[in-house]
Amino acid sequence: MISQKMEQLGKKSSVIREIFEYAKKRRAEIGDDKVFDFSIGNPSIPAPAAVNEAIRRLTAEQDPVALHGYTSAPGDLGVRGKIADQITRRFGMEASAATIYMTCGAAASLTISLHAIVNEGDEVVVLAPFFPEYRVFAEKAGATLTVVKCREEDFQIDFDTLDSAITDKTKAIIVNSPNNPSGVVLSLDTIQKLTALLDKKQQEYGTHIFLIADEPYRELVYAMEVPYLPLYYKNTIVCYSYSKSLSLPGERIGYVFVSPRMDNAGDVFAAVCGAGRALGFVCAPSLLQYTIGECLNETANIDAYRKNRDLFYETLTDIGYKIARPDGAFYLFMKALEDDAYTFCERAKKYELLLVPSDSFGFEGYVRLAYCVAYDTIERALPAFRALYNDYQESK
Amino acid sequence: MISQKMEQLGKKSSVIREIFEYAKKRRAEIGDDKVFDFSIGNPSIPAPAAVNEAIRRLTAEQDPVALHGYTSAPGDLGVRGKIADQITRRFGMEASAATIYMTCGAAASLTISLHAIVNEGDEVVVLAPFFPEYRVFAEKAGATLTVVKCREEDFQIDFDTLDSAITDKTKAIIVNSPNNPSGVVLSLDTIQKLTALLDKKQQEYGTHIFLIADEPYRELVYAMEVPYLPLYYKNTIVCYSYSKSLSLPGERIGYVFVSPRMDNAGDVFAAVCGAGRALGFVCAPSLLQYTIGECLNETANIDAYRKNRDLFYETLTDIGYKIARPDGAFYLFMKALEDDAYTFCERAKKYELLLVPSDSFGFEGYVRLAYCVAYDTIERALPAFRALYNDYQESK
Repeated sequence: MISQKMEQLGKKSSVIREIFEYAKKRRAEIGDDKVFDFSIGNPSIPAPAAVNEAIRRLTAEQDPVALHGYTSAPGDLGVRGKIADQITRRFGMEASAATIYMTCGAAASLTISLHAIVNEGDEVVVLAPFFPEYRVFAEKAGATLTVVKCREEDFQIDFDTLDSAITDKTKAIIVNSPNNPSGVVLSLDTIQKLTALLDKKQQEYGTHIFLIADEPYRELVYAMEVPYLPLYYKNTIVCYSYSKSLSLPGERIGYVFVSPRMDNAGDVFAAVCGAGRALGFVCAPSLLQYTIGECLNETANIDAYRKNRDLFYETLTDIGYKIARPDGAFYLFMKALEDDAYTFCERAKKYELLLVPSDSFGFEGYVRLAYCVAYDTIERALPAFRALYNDYQESK
Repeated sequence: MISQKMEQLGKKSSVIREIFEYAKKRRAEIGDDKVFDFSIGNPSIPAPAAVNEAIRRLTAEQDPVALHGYTSAPGDLGVRGKIADQITRRFGMEASAATIYMTCGAAASLTISLHAIVNEGDEVVVLAPFFPEYRVFAEKAGATLTVVKCREEDFQIDFDTLDSAITDKTKAIIVNSPNNPSGVVLSLDTIQKLTALLDKKQQEYGTHIFLIADEPYRELVYAMEVPYLPLYYKNTIVCYSYSKSLSLPGERIGYVFVSPRMDNAGDVFAAVCGAGRALGFVCAPSLLQYTIGECLNETANIDAYRKNRDLFYETLTDIGYKIARPDGAFYLFMKALEDDAYTFCERAKKYELLLVPSDSFGFEGYVRLAYCVAYDTIERALPAFRALYNDYQESK
């Protein structure tokens, strides 16, 4: 009667949600400090002080009718211009307000982009492990999801598999680097091979294949520069969010940037505007737009994440765990000590370690550890990881 | 290649947009005070001071990680509870957080509700004149729009036409009272006849027909109480926005309230959650949610609108214009002085009067006047309306 698909989506409780409820119960039973919950990927550091200062300044000084009034549908022209200037300054990539659409966060950036370009029956390629909502977003836009697993040795792209997965129906590939859940950053070499392959396939099929760069974790890298995809491939759409870079996950503010290098950039941007309109997204919240415009040069202090990663990754590796090289985001992707990640997670619970099995990310046999937690939580959890490891060694 | 529908939606410039551009040009030519622009329906009064005070207090006093962090997908439980309590206190309607979903404004409330309940091929009924985006939202959700014209004598529902327009495929009817563009409030008598008809049709077809109450203008009424639809019909979904009541149109904050009286309220609410998720809307901006929670008893000072309406309506009626009874919102719906509203609007331009022809609202032969402008703009425009009227009288 109502939409069965939507009803099921609303009712399906996620693995992470179940762990959240279990953690709450367990904390009440044995105490907060005894439960080591690494399941939640929420920023744990505060927004830079400049953000709240900008909000207070804007509300104190600006005309409230203008401040809280409608901006144009794609967002305030001044804010979009500042973002474009920053893209140009930072990456050497030409950009203007004309192809930037302010959105209500990363999810909105993705749904608007997908609805803009997808026609019923198109295929969208994702690289596993991947953020599970990609499937929900792509299917709602009318696409079929094609999952291509990354190479297990380094979680870079497996080009043989990707080559055979791209068809004449492939409308887009979503690239998420730094990656949730693996923390891996795609190397420049991988990006160059990827764009060469996409160029070849476009020519072969006479189609356009869009590269959707989902970049909420761009600023969360610890030892490298993340290649800026529009510089390497003209049919790129960047989906950005300030959730992580400014530690504002609840504020849902970001943008879509359609590369002006693509042949039909104006048409694609028009389709982005049309999709924003049809989905109910015109004019991202104005106060947040103006706040972003005031804080473009700010970044949350990610040193805490780096410190966490160093301790966590090095100690777990020393113990004997196998972990994907974590160059960014705030996740470790660790190989389970048995084939079935669910069973492994159940056994970890005996040590009060709450981990997310990797199956929902489209890649079995691993667990995701979110290290956006207090440093001492990691310190106190390490003996439990050691005990869990020894437990497996002894039972061999 | 990309979505043609979305591209066209993004490219189609609206009548109002064209008037906006014309007004800009004309102001530059003859001066701001010589152009009388009644085309834009943006609140012109400031938000109550309590709103900015709440924002400053929250940013100064709350832990920034919590304040700017994710709330649960349907929104913060505390804020939703406060809204539910207000619904109960104000309307005597039972409500709880369990069926309230915080949204990014009125458009989002509507798209989420429609995607939750519509299956491909369903019909959604709207009452003309109607907000043109209803068509965009309903068609994107997979529905066909059925337009039922209101009675011209009082712009209440024409029940003969409505009776024959409802079929076994009718999934919902959208009711917008006070109405954009007419400013008309549906009477209690109309509401009672409507719900009786819907009950009869549900029984006849063995279907559920949802009443979507689109209520952004609820607080903008000048001499009456607007009937609260969930009290009269159990399959009601309320789409609310604080855009007008708190004069925060740019901030895009509102909610969906699924009446707990409907038989399958839990399933419908799950579908609302699923649609919010699939469209990319989970967790409305957190700072704005908390701000609303602090300002529930505030309303923007609408006396300015009332004063505008009284002067505008009374004087235009005295001149001889025929206008729908404007009990709410900030619009007058005035009969054009010739059959073709476009030609009438062109002739009005000679007097520097910028009016919106009613055709895009699905009701020909009228114009919409938005009176959310400065009082003296109306005062200064009245002689031009008189001259326009005389012009028509003389040319008869």
